[in-house]
Amino acid sequence: MQQVAIVGTGLIGASFGLALRVAGFDGSIVGVSSERALADAEACGAIDRGAPLAEAVAKADLVFLSQTIGRILDTVRHLDGLVKPGALVTDAGSTKREIVGLARQSIRCCQFLGGHPMAGKETRGAGAADAELFRGRVWVLTPDERAELETPAVRAFREWLEGIGAHVLVLGAEEHDRVVALTSHLPQLASTALGAMLADTAQIQVSGSGLADMTRLALSSYDLWRDILATNSQAVDRALSLYIQELEHIRENLRNRRLEEEFQRGAETAARLRNRK
Amino acid sequence: MQQVAIVGTGLIGASFGLALRVAGFDGSIVGVSSERALADAEACGAIDRGAPLAEAVAKADLVFLSQTIGRILDTVRHLDGLVKPGALVTDAGSTKREIVGLARQSIRCCQFLGGHPMAGKETRGAGAADAELFRGRVWVLTPDERAELETPAVRAFREWLEGIGAHVLVLGAEEHDRVVALTSHLPQLASTALGAMLADTAQIQVSGSGLADMTRLALSSYDLWRDILATNSQAVDRALSLYIQELEHIRENLRNRRLEEEFQRGAETAARLRNRK
Repeated sequence: MQQVAIVGTGLIGASFGLALRVAGFDGSIVGVSSERALADAEACGAIDRGAPLAEAVAKADLVFLSQTIGRILDTVRHLDGLVKPGALVTDAGSTKREIVGLARQSIRCCQFLGGHPMAGKETRGAGAADAELFRGRVWVLTPDERAELETPAVRAFREWLEGIGAHVLVLGAEEHDRVVALTSHLPQLASTALGAMLADTAQIQVSGSGLADMTRLALSSYDLWRDILATNSQAVDRALSLYIQELEHIRENLRNRRLEEEFQRGAETAARLRNRK
Repeated sequence: MQQVAIVGTGLIGASFGLALRVAGFDGSIVGVSSERALADAEACGAIDRGAPLAEAVAKADLVFLSQTIGRILDTVRHLDGLVKPGALVTDAGSTKREIVGLARQSIRCCQFLGGHPMAGKETRGAGAADAELFRGRVWVLTPDERAELETPAVRAFREWLEGIGAHVLVLGAEEHDRVVALTSHLPQLASTALGAMLADTAQIQVSGSGLADMTRLALSSYDLWRDILATNSQAVDRALSLYIQELEHIRENLRNRRLEEEFQRGAETAARLRNRK
């Protein structure tokens, strides 16, 4: 892997560039983004220089699409014929079904493999880039068939993912979207709903740290979430429906011991997430 | 204020004792609790000694009930005649209507004033006691009438509350319970429901820090919450119903711009809690 093109040098793209550098990558890293995002990414050392899309991807061995979902879909539509054979195009989009489906139809000149690093921050932009952002975090890859993981380009990419500390997990694109509807999109909407519902409550300062925790995600920008929810609405609808059922169950059992089971199940999940079990 | 009795020397009781000491209280602090809780509280300097209830409260100018709600109700039933006239009995129970109502009927020998410090930790017990636990946090007082706040005993108590850094807020007991149903009990159940619903999901490691945040409260013990929910079930039922309505509204608008309004309202609340607005 000699040259990398990072398309979209925001938090994820710039962090990926920095992480590659820290892991020892000494090839060239070219960014494709707005003028300002390129300046920020260059200033923090995440890219060597900026270039237009066609120029940046022409010689790249790895093309990393780290834009918002809508822009990734747009880039995928325009990549075919621009990337050299034997190169790998991958992405960091938060939903996979639509992106992988479109890439399957559109990109014929080289290999495409969907990806999703489960990492982020409240702060956006290259200014918040962090070479350690992916360390210890899951990085999902979504091949249609396992054989896609054994090409030379993907083998090289996976070695770099290990180098930056990510844990690769292979899932189907549909399975990925079902899981993140539950583990990421639902928590976001549960937080947003709680914040929205309390917008007209005067006395919210009468609260402990719990409410602050539960509304941290509600600070997230709709700009990011519009595309995520629009490209995963069926699975999110199903997740919301299950959550509402669980809340109704709790509501019906507020005064009896069945509630204890729900507390136990809730605590088990929370402990499992914290690797205590 | 010469002598204080702390009934229940867990996290809140022991932190209150420590905070009084740090704020300069040099009178005697007597604890009433289990043998082990008393030993822990004495070891960390929160109390001078332990004593049985009748002995501890007989000479106290301030009796602070920092047990679970069920035990506070039990103590309130047994206090009358034991406390000296002119003393103040107050409490730290997380719901106020039942406690204040029972105290109004049961305690005739001295003044009772309901209270609720909005402070806590995941770790229970005197071992986690912290003199700074109440600094910058709201401490709700729930008199039936404002005149109750002007007795010498309450004036002295409020001065100590300021001394330990708490911000006193006066609310009616019913109003308190309605507000905390929204700002504390609902967030707990929203977290528990999310955790419980995901108990059978294998892939929960495919998640970012958001799910970990949203399930922190789910680690809380049912033992504490049973009494809270049982003594505020009407207001909690109403809060759950409003939350479910909001989730249904979001569910119906997953693919259109009305969702943007909910994100904006959610972010406003989250920012308001963080004093950014």
